[in-house]
Amino acid sequence: MIKNLCVIGVGLIGGSLARGLRKQQWCQSIIGIDANQHAIDEALALGVIDTGYTSIDQCALVPDVIVIAVPVLKVASVFAQLKPWANQCAAMTDVCSTKENIINDYKQVFGTQESTCFVPGHPIAGRERSGVAAAMDDLYQQRKVILTPMDNSRESSINLITEMWQQVGAHVEHLNPHEHDKILAATSHLPHALAFSLVHCLSTQSHTDEIFRYAAGGFADFTRIASSDPIVWREICLANRKELLEALEHFDTSLHRLRDSLNAGDGDAIEEIFTQAKAARDRYTNS
Amino acid sequence: MIKNLCVIGVGLIGGSLARGLRKQQWCQSIIGIDANQHAIDEALALGVIDTGYTSIDQCALVPDVIVIAVPVLKVASVFAQLKPWANQCAAMTDVCSTKENIINDYKQVFGTQESTCFVPGHPIAGRERSGVAAAMDDLYQQRKVILTPMDNSRESSINLITEMWQQVGAHVEHLNPHEHDKILAATSHLPHALAFSLVHCLSTQSHTDEIFRYAAGGFADFTRIASSDPIVWREICLANRKELLEALEHFDTSLHRLRDSLNAGDGDAIEEIFTQAKAARDRYTNS
Repeated sequence: MIKNLCVIGVGLIGGSLARGLRKQQWCQSIIGIDANQHAIDEALALGVIDTGYTSIDQCALVPDVIVIAVPVLKVASVFAQLKPWANQCAAMTDVCSTKENIINDYKQVFGTQESTCFVPGHPIAGRERSGVAAAMDDLYQQRKVILTPMDNSRESSINLITEMWQQVGAHVEHLNPHEHDKILAATSHLPHALAFSLVHCLSTQSHTDEIFRYAAGGFADFTRIASSDPIVWREICLANRKELLEALEHFDTSLHRLRDSLNAGDGDAIEEIFTQAKAARDRYTNS
Repeated sequence: MIKNLCVIGVGLIGGSLARGLRKQQWCQSIIGIDANQHAIDEALALGVIDTGYTSIDQCALVPDVIVIAVPVLKVASVFAQLKPWANQCAAMTDVCSTKENIINDYKQVFGTQESTCFVPGHPIAGRERSGVAAAMDDLYQQRKVILTPMDNSRESSINLITEMWQQVGAHVEHLNPHEHDKILAATSHLPHALAFSLVHCLSTQSHTDEIFRYAAGGFADFTRIASSDPIVWREICLANRKELLEALEHFDTSLHRLRDSLNAGDGDAIEEIFTQAKAARDRYTNS
């Protein structure tokens, strides 16, 4: 148990963690910081946080644990504002979907230190709804959280962040940041790019109304992630641009193979692609 | 209520219809025909059908209503076998995901008649599981069924097929076959092609294990349709090749726009695509 938890960015991800940790009574007090006064008011009204500020310098005490839960491209400016507290807290983490750029941002602000309380992290969880009102205390139950500790991340900080995520039911694993970004580009950023592109493509066609009118359950599932927050995803795509572009290129190769087979009327080649895909999915997923 | 219903192809789609109609007691007896003896045995054991044959010529009586529920490229040979019964039954329909090719197949076998009992149809429903064991009596509840009647389809046959689908809770609508194929290429065949291609692409990469290991709920939703039956989907893609290729080309344009924006680091352009997609999806779907 810790004394003060500070969540910077009181939205779905930060709010769900705050709710989960409160339920477990892991912290005595939760401080929320969000540039958006409305988010603070809502989080206070919902009991997600105990105290709220619209900027970091309004917070007089140094929290034990800091969780940075702002969109990925805002993290650098948060680091700059956190500089006065450098390494005074027990542990600090983030929740961003990309890790190499966050670590670069960190180094730019804090330079090279002998040891740091910062332990970069990424909970593999979410909903297509956003905002603190959508926060759920069980969002991280049975979900994976990937930590990508830096060479100089303190052991005690890693342990504390691990404990924090385990409190809300998550399974904590470690990856190096480059591996993380490569894997997430494939399993998360690429599917989002495809879903957004598909719905965008359909929405620009002359018979859009009919198209959506006859869409079935499979379509709703397939495109659910295209209802995600456009700004959050703009930033993730930009932050992981290199890996995402590579993943898009791989995908393009597969799609062209299918298109060529279809063009040639080559049913066996089509079936081979589909069979391999189904086998892979059935092997790895249970839903 | 009718006397004899004959379902040709006792799988998920035909089996679910049989189950639903039996529950509603719409037919006195259900005959199942399937080249696969195992499917017949299973359907008999599950009480989905009352009598089963492995070929149409084994069935001595002419049924009142025939539902052709075989994969799309097998329909032509079913038509050929049904020729002896031509227009002796009250109504005949199919359940295929493409309609222009089915109508062409029909005309090739039956030629041009003054009137016909055939009413082409397509229930917009399914599961990624296949086979009669996966059949559910409520599969069509609240689902759309699109009929694409031919110019010479008998009014009484259209009414009977409409009544049949309404019995299992479906909403029946009419489209012309070309419209149907164009719309379904966009909402169903294209998403399947993308999902299969994505999983295929990921399954051919060197770090496939890690990729699937860290896949989240969004990925499972997005790729669920890639667990569909490869043979069924091979046939649908081939049957609707022209429309699907056109849909793929549209998609390619959208995806390239996103890729170019990403390459240029143009966040505003990316956000515009995502925002338009989210707005379209949120407007048209509720899930």
